[in-house]
Amino acid sequence: MRKVYFKDLKKHLDEQITLDGFIEKIRDLQYVQFMILRDGTGQVQVTIEKNEENKSLNDIVSSLTLESTVKVVGKLLDSPNVKLNGMELIPTEISPTSSSKAELPIDIKDKGKALRETRLDYRFLDLRRNDNHLFFQCETTLEHALREYFIKNDFIEIHSPKIAKGAAESGAEVFKIDYFGEEACLSQSPQFYKQMAIAAGFNNVFEIGPVFRAENSHTSYHATEINMADAEISYIDSVDEVMSTEEAWLKYGIDALWEQYGEKIENTYKVTKPNTEVAFPRITFKEAKEILREKYSFVGEREDDLERHEEKLLCQYAKEKYKSDFIFITKFPFAARPFYHMLDEEGLTESYDLLFRGVEITTGAQREHRYDILKEQMIKKGVNPESLDFYLEFFEYGCPPHGGFGVGIARIMMQLFNIDNIREATFIYRGPTRLNP
Amino acid sequence: MRKVYFKDLKKHLDEQITLDGFIEKIRDLQYVQFMILRDGTGQVQVTIEKNEENKSLNDIVSSLTLESTVKVVGKLLDSPNVKLNGMELIPTEISPTSSSKAELPIDIKDKGKALRETRLDYRFLDLRRNDNHLFFQCETTLEHALREYFIKNDFIEIHSPKIAKGAAESGAEVFKIDYFGEEACLSQSPQFYKQMAIAAGFNNVFEIGPVFRAENSHTSYHATEINMADAEISYIDSVDEVMSTEEAWLKYGIDALWEQYGEKIENTYKVTKPNTEVAFPRITFKEAKEILREKYSFVGEREDDLERHEEKLLCQYAKEKYKSDFIFITKFPFAARPFYHMLDEEGLTESYDLLFRGVEITTGAQREHRYDILKEQMIKKGVNPESLDFYLEFFEYGCPPHGGFGVGIARIMMQLFNIDNIREATFIYRGPTRLNP
Repeated sequence: MRKVYFKDLKKHLDEQITLDGFIEKIRDLQYVQFMILRDGTGQVQVTIEKNEENKSLNDIVSSLTLESTVKVVGKLLDSPNVKLNGMELIPTEISPTSSSKAELPIDIKDKGKALRETRLDYRFLDLRRNDNHLFFQCETTLEHALREYFIKNDFIEIHSPKIAKGAAESGAEVFKIDYFGEEACLSQSPQFYKQMAIAAGFNNVFEIGPVFRAENSHTSYHATEINMADAEISYIDSVDEVMSTEEAWLKYGIDALWEQYGEKIENTYKVTKPNTEVAFPRITFKEAKEILREKYSFVGEREDDLERHEEKLLCQYAKEKYKSDFIFITKFPFAARPFYHMLDEEGLTESYDLLFRGVEITTGAQREHRYDILKEQMIKKGVNPESLDFYLEFFEYGCPPHGGFGVGIARIMMQLFNIDNIREATFIYRGPTRLNP
Repeated sequence: MRKVYFKDLKKHLDEQITLDGFIEKIRDLQYVQFMILRDGTGQVQVTIEKNEENKSLNDIVSSLTLESTVKVVGKLLDSPNVKLNGMELIPTEISPTSSSKAELPIDIKDKGKALRETRLDYRFLDLRRNDNHLFFQCETTLEHALREYFIKNDFIEIHSPKIAKGAAESGAEVFKIDYFGEEACLSQSPQFYKQMAIAAGFNNVFEIGPVFRAENSHTSYHATEINMADAEISYIDSVDEVMSTEEAWLKYGIDALWEQYGEKIENTYKVTKPNTEVAFPRITFKEAKEILREKYSFVGEREDDLERHEEKLLCQYAKEKYKSDFIFITKFPFAARPFYHMLDEEGLTESYDLLFRGVEITTGAQREHRYDILKEQMIKKGVNPESLDFYLEFFEYGCPPHGGFGVGIARIMMQLFNIDNIREATFIYRGPTRLNP
């Protein structure tokens, strides 16, 4: 039942095989016809001599258009002279399985020839490029490895509701839904439901799924719909355990990805593997600000948070001093954090940001699980406790100390592959002015 | 860093260990105190003698409420007389980590004592029951195995957008979203985007993610938000390949689940493993109707589709005749199917339903990938091609023959665990009158 994919052709030399693929190139010469087929895993040359015997095959090839699909039956020969992988298929049958219009709206091979927005309009053609196939094969591999880490460590996978009553985090912008006449909204984060699972006694949980943000932002890294990986762990003594979990998890995923696709990634995307051998350094927010001032003579605009340029410099610092592509910044001021982060004796949050190659990819924290303190923090942040009574209730009947983190998968992929725009790192991008295809 | 979970206690006899859990029971007798702790993986007895030396521990235990969480340090003893697993923890430290109100709104141990709707209101308490922990551990295991099958077979995982411009399938009811002033809707199915991936040359794709249906149905198996597993495969010669893929996939998942949790599932839920040794029988819709009429003297109300009772009888037939818990019904009339199913020479669809223990769990089909015929079928079904021009376009520039299927994970779980209501088989259920918690 299993098809022969082009990446496995070497195993089938001298065999009679059936291949399926898109027609990438046709050369129709005086005595011979060549076709290059592509199937997302590789390419192969099909060679058809022009002669009486091959007349019907020759006629078929002459009638084919580029980007159509064909089924080809034939013998695969070892042909050292053929530039493309040193082999060629000599067909006995060629059957068109679909046909493309002769003119394509974008150039599939040359990304630079069309505007990005035009390419996104024709995303199904844009995605035919080999680098894009590799990208989504790699995303699949990374995501599976990240899930595997959770499974091996006894996490339960949850699927939290995407249709919610109120906004998951106060103040943020949400999409409104008409829910049988009632107003509901799209979930911005599984945060409250991860915590509900902890209150339900699930020791450790994770979710990889969509979250929605109605921000009217037109940057290279915002999207209105993103694929988030979220985790929450119980019975922690401090936020350090959350950081250690995330660090081990990311290293596991990156190692698995590089083991399978490292060479292809490095050749295609001209990037190197992040260093998974060293411990990710951990410095406090206060230390970070000192380093920025003293080492880089840089003072950011915000006293209670980090801006992009500061993140960049801190990553430079981590690379130079610790050979690390990652760095944890801990103990952010409460002003920059949501109400549910736990506070230490100094009033700083037991939280962190994880920076990766110049960009923040995660916020994590120990959560406040004590009902009275949580309610107080809500009020301090100007959140009306009554608006979140369903959530506060989770902490009234026993709830283990816990913490967790969330990461956008596309954000990790962008940093791994050095991709400058989230529109290129998402299967179908959604933004304020893009709702198609 | 890794905690000791109660299921692994046997490995730690005679050791000084730290345990975390919920307090399930307290017995405060004249000379001794007992606590039963629970952590979702098992239970353990903690025994504290009452004496001068233990005074502070005794005071702590006296102050504790049920369902609070505690951290306990102590020595784990092999105690054959202890009914609960023949062991007990003799503590040297007990620290409350959270405290529960004395009165709980529902009885956690006895499911029958509260109305289902009340239990759903307090889902975070309802989920504390052991059978529910087992259920979601099993769902995690099944889902991971189902993903693993895809990964091993070179499928690419996609994350299709949940915010869509039009309805994914004509006529069906969708939730409307206000998208920056424009009207959008929540995706009912990744169908069109799976097909887009095929047109993009992704050989085989899958997605496990939420879909949304604005049906005002109040049955035991409808929900407005469900977790769907979807797959689509390229270059098929017929729908038989789709069925074979789904069959192998489900067998792989069920075998993996039973290998890990079979005994626990059978003991807790009083069910048996579905037969994964036999081939799932395949009969046509026409044959099915004949069998119903001749063997069961039953004629359903609809000539072009199957109703619930017919599905039940056909499963009975499959079990009796083929020892199979599953049966494929093929070649449904076009009237009962969407426009994009491929038709055979007789005008019947190259589609199937998969029935499992009395219920339809899947619809699968070969899709029509030829632009002109697809457009014709649209018109026949009363769908305006202009309303789906973004979709039709996928078939204008070459698209491999392909087919696929979709299955609700909760639906499989309900049939495996003999659960009568989807509200019990979903982490957080969403229905027309339920938007909380």
